[in-house]
Formats: sequence, structure tokens, C-alpha cells
Amino acid sequence: MKISTFASPQAIVEEGLTIKQRFVIVIDTLRATSVITAALSRGAKGVIPVMEIEEAVRLYQNLDNERTLLCGEREGNPIPGFHLGNSAMEYTPAAVAGKTLIMTTTNGTRAIHAAGQARALALGCLLNAAAVAAGARRSGLDVTILCAGTRGRFTLEDILTAGAIVERLGAPDAVMDDLSMLSHDLYLRHYGDLKGALRQCTHASYLAEAGYGQDIDYCMQADLLNAVPYYEKGLVMLER
Amino acid sequence: MKISTFASPQAIVEEGLTIKQRFVIVIDTLRATSVITAALSRGAKGVIPVMEIEEAVRLYQNLDNERTLLCGEREGNPIPGFHLGNSAMEYTPAAVAGKTLIMTTTNGTRAIHAAGQARALALGCLLNAAAVAAGARRSGLDVTILCAGTRGRFTLEDILTAGAIVERLGAPDAVMDDLSMLSHDLYLRHYGDLKGALRQCTHASYLAEAGYGQDIDYCMQADLLNAVPYYEKGLVMLER
Repeated sequence: MKISTFASPQAIVEEGLTIKQRFVIVIDTLRATSVITAALSRGAKGVIPVMEIEEAVRLYQNLDNERTLLCGEREGNPIPGFHLGNSAMEYTPAAVAGKTLIMTTTNGTRAIHAAGQARALALGCLLNAAAVAAGARRSGLDVTILCAGTRGRFTLEDILTAGAIVERLGAPDAVMDDLSMLSHDLYLRHYGDLKGALRQCTHASYLAEAGYGQDIDYCMQADLLNAVPYYEKGLVMLER
Repeated sequence: MKISTFASPQAIVEEGLTIKQRFVIVIDTLRATSVITAALSRGAKGVIPVMEIEEAVRLYQNLDNERTLLCGEREGNPIPGFHLGNSAMEYTPAAVAGKTLIMTTTNGTRAIHAAGQARALALGCLLNAAAVAAGARRSGLDVTILCAGTRGRFTLEDILTAGAIVERLGAPDAVMDDLSMLSHDLYLRHYGDLKGALRQCTHASYLAEAGYGQDIDYCMQADLLNAVPYYEKGLVMLER
């Protein structure tokens, strides 16, 4: 198996032809892919990821409002008038069961769209690291890990998650590029205290200061959920 | 001082406004920025970086051929009909003194052009890590380190170089983003054997197999040259 890892969706632009043959795992650990994985495992029917708030609202107005929720964040905070923000704590079974979620988050959604041409496109986070790695192995395809980053920047929580997935893909036998190797090495150094490794990190510090410390605690737990969201034709759903 | 580090030029696209206020250091350790630094310190007058072979040839035909050399590589190898390739070994004082070099390399040139809007744009490598850090400190500006990478991919030799420069910028006092911190941490773990750290790396392995092992030995030496190439209006020259 070949494994390539990219630090941001901007970096993957020239990989168009390659990713058509690949199992792509999009990671936005804090917090889009964690929230989507949690929401689907708590009974949400599907998630429609969109880039813009206006797009989310227009879509909502054209769907059955009984079964649809407007969700997402800007700068980490809830969007006025939306039903749910970007904290996994809000996505309780009571809130989401049977619902389709229209979700707008900046970096995560952009990464999903950047990888839209993939042969298979799954969403990964620490919560489902083992499950998504198992899905990739079953596919028999080479793997591309695409971190959402933050506006083109490298974010450590995504790289640690990439390393956790590389480990669960069976790293020693794989042919890896430099970032896959570095991610794996970093994960092995920090897996005993993944949250501690984020202490000085830009995005995690920002979220902690904004009052989302509990979210970080939740999202930094490895292998808590046995659920793999797949994106296909505009919709994210659990593996059938 | 703020320090930001980007793993590839594609990632910096959205930083246009920010880099206008910044001291940007472009890194392509294996080998463009190492070769340019070596060539200028051995007496070359200036370097004109261009993207395409055709562009290099057309420019050459319009310049004084007595004082100009065609230089560069494709896939690491010399370009047929060009005077010099991309190995620092070829850039002897006898070959380059007083000459202007038209140089086409893929990743390095692309990174230089991506940062063309910078307030100051210097070229960095391990060879001049201390010198380029001193130049940045003297500028009083915040610093953006831009790694050339390889077609959007993260390359470890550039990240180790970024870490060496962060260290020489006086890291403990700086406000750093995640990749700056990681680079610094990685450099501190490997500075005793930088070449050894590259043993499994994609690009370094490719170059070693292609017979450029001596180039890697040369380029992985920290602080060998006290020379800082600056890019301005299409031309790279040593600091006046």
C-alpha cells in the first residue's frame, strides 16, 4: 500500500489524476470531521457539506424543514439563526436522529470538495481512526490522507490524527511519503497524551480560550466510534 | 517576532496580504536555494529564476551570451544544451564568476514566484541558515518561511532547514504557528545528524539513487556560507 499525506487542501490541487485512483481520508479533527462522525453515529441520516452560509440557507429553504437542520460555524462559533454549531456536545441523539444536516464549516468542507474526484472519499478523525483505517484496507486501494488545516496552514491535531491512521493502516509495510512518515513518528511519540501534545497549538489554544475545552477532550479520544462517514455526490453518510 | 511556516507554495495563496508585510524566506534545500547560494558566494553576479525551459532559452538569446549561462534541471537531471545542471559541484568559481545565471528549476522557482509580493524575499538553505536568520532579525519584520516542497508535497529536508532557521531566529521568544514549532522540534532532535534524518525521505533517496549523494552531503551542512541571496524584481543577488 502507498500512503501520501497532505497538510492542506491547497496542496492537493496537482494530484487530481492520482486521487481518482485513491482512497482519500479527509481529516479535520478540530472539529468538522469529528462532529460529522459523532452526529452520524448518533443517528443523523446524512450530512450535506456546503461552503457558504447563503448556500446552506438556500438549500434549507428548499428541503423538508421537519427533517433538516442548519449546522456549522464561523471562526469556531455558532452561526446566528442556525440550529446547531460545531460542538459534538450539541449533536445528541435527540437532536439529530433521522435528520439530514446541512453543514457549513470553512476548512473541513473545503477539503472535502478538494478531494471530490477521489475513487472513495471517507472522513477521518481520532474518534474513528481504527474504523477508517479498516475501511481503507478493505478497499485495497492506495491511500491519500488530506488534512483540512486552517486556511492553508498546517495544524498539528490533523497531523497527529494522520499518524494515528497511518499506524492503524499497518505502517511498517507501507510505502510512505515524507509527511506520512513524520505524522506516524509524531503520533508514536505522543499517543500516550495526544491532548497534551496540542498544548501550544494555535487552533486548539484558540478553541480552548473560546470555551470549547470539553470539545477538545472529546475529539482527542482515539477509536471511540466505529463509524466511517463516506462522501458521495454531495452527501455524507455512514458506510452502507 | 511572529514566525509562520508553510510546507508548499500552494499553501500560501491565501496569505497574499500578510506576506506583503513580511520577511519571507524561501527554502529548497535539495537543491535550488543551496545551489543559488553557493553560486553567488562563488562569484556569480546574479540569478534570474524562470519557470519554463523555453522561457530560459528565449531570455538567453536576448542577453549577452558571454556573460550569461543557462542552468537548471528537470527531474533532478541536467537539461540538454544547458551549461550547468542543479549540482553545487558544477558551480565552481571558474565557471560562474561574473556571470548571470538563467536558472529553471521546478519547485524552487515556483516558490520564489509565489512569494513575489513579500516585503523582503530571501533564499534560505542549511548552508546559510545563520546568515539568513541574521538578515531576518535585522529587518525587524515578522517572518514567513516558505518551503518549496515537491509538487505540493511536504519534504523533510525543507522542514529541517526551516527548523534550523527558527532556532537561529531565537525561537523561544517568537510567536510560532504549528509548523514552525514542529520544524524547530524536529531540528532539535536531528541536528546532530541531519543527513541521517533524510535516510528514508522520498526526494533525498531519489537524488542519492540518481548519483547525487555528494550533493546531499554538501547541502546538509549548516552555516557553511555567510551569504544571503535576495530576490527583487526578477533577479536574485547577494545582499548589497
